[in-house]
Amino acid sequence: MIVKTVEVKIEKTNQGLYVSNITDLVNKELKECGVTVGSVTVFVPASTAGVSTLEYEPNLIKDLDTMLERIIPSDINYEHHKTWGEQNGMSHLRASIFGPSLTIPFKDGRMMLGQYQHVVFLDFDVIARKREVIIQIVT
Amino acid sequence: MIVKTVEVKIEKTNQGLYVSNITDLVNKELKECGVTVGSVTVFVPASTAGVSTLEYEPNLIKDLDTMLERIIPSDINYEHHKTWGEQNGMSHLRASIFGPSLTIPFKDGRMMLGQYQHVVFLDFDVIARKREVIIQIVT
Amino acid sequence: MIVKTVEVKIEKTNQGLYVSNITDLVNKELKECGVTVGSVTVFVPASTAGVSTLEYEPNLIKDLDTMLERIIPSDINYEHHKTWGEQNGMSHLRASIFGPSLTIPFKDGRMMLGQYQHVVFLDFDVIARKREVIIQIVT
Repeated sequence: MIVKTVEVKIEKTNQGLYVSNITDLVNKELKECGVTVGSVTVFVPASTAGVSTLEYEPNLIKDLDTMLERIIPSDINYEHHKTWGEQNGMSHLRASIFGPSLTIPFKDGRMMLGQYQHVVFLDFDVIARKREVIIQIVT
Repeated sequence: MIVKTVEVKIEKTNQGLYVSNITDLVNKELKECGVTVGSVTVFVPASTAGVSTLEYEPNLIKDLDTMLERIIPSDINYEHHKTWGEQNGMSHLRASIFGPSLTIPFKDGRMMLGQYQHVVFLDFDVIARKREVIIQIVT
Repeated sequence: MIVKTVEVKIEKTNQGLYVSNITDLVNKELKECGVTVGSVTVFVPASTAGVSTLEYEPNLIKDLDTMLERIIPSDINYEHHKTWGEQNGMSHLRASIFGPSLTIPFKDGRMMLGQYQHVVFLDFDVIARKREVIIQIVT
């Protein structure tokens, strides 16, 4: 049974890779529901951002940036740039490989995450943007 | 509550990377259900195909192909080729990294996607194939 | 409706990449439920392991290892190593790109997988570890 579907705003404030730890934000929605056991789906309604889990700490985010530059570089030419005149071909590809959805079981009003595992919103676009994630709770 | 579980046919008609925009196909299943709020899971029952979201436009599909050739090339040798005599080691690896499942919230009978975000079936196999995706609707 | 949420132990016994075929383990949980139609979510509560589907055969696992070494090498330096003194920066990045969750439809008490498609637990950490996966069944 779907208990709640809510859109929550997230703002990308910098250029380049932006990683936001949304763990507390999702747990807050779970707590407000008062539901004890179920699953929560986090969905990113965008083609240049994604969601995954990651230990949220600055050094690892640098490593993520380096890794992404290696496999999907920001400084090469993409055919997509011809379509709209935007320079974000790499943003679309990065988003697609990470994917826009994540489903996480919860109990006692908290996601059943590992100790160092955080839910992260990943914004791969080249400019600052107003974003939202959809949080849907099932019990 | 599971409302509907349906298998829908998709045909890969070319060799190499095949990307099919299945957004309308999924929305059609949602509409037929008459359910207003819920989530839909799209699942690919295959080991050489996957599902994700992507802006469906030809230039970006060329970029996806180039990116995949860079990280999981089609022209190198894979150990897997010894197992069955097929030349699709890269297809399995590409499918595994993209993943076979996606869960998307919907309301008013439509998936809550971004403006340029399409649900895409990705066929990584080397030959044309008859495929299907499973669409499961939860409310 | 959530029918069951269970934590199942998996042990990583070697160093390097560890791939465990958990298909039978998940199907066993489904059968014990006695539920015929629904979906099962497999979630990995860890930041250095993930879940996906893959044809489980030794040659393809070698290919997966080679591919991962190419895109997220184990023998380069990661900034994350400064944070905790552990040498598993690559494990976190590999886990994040594969993702921790998978949702699979089932009917007649069996996942609707392709013929060569297995559900695999992927442990990317550098040392042997005791792990668990969360299996949650929805009908």
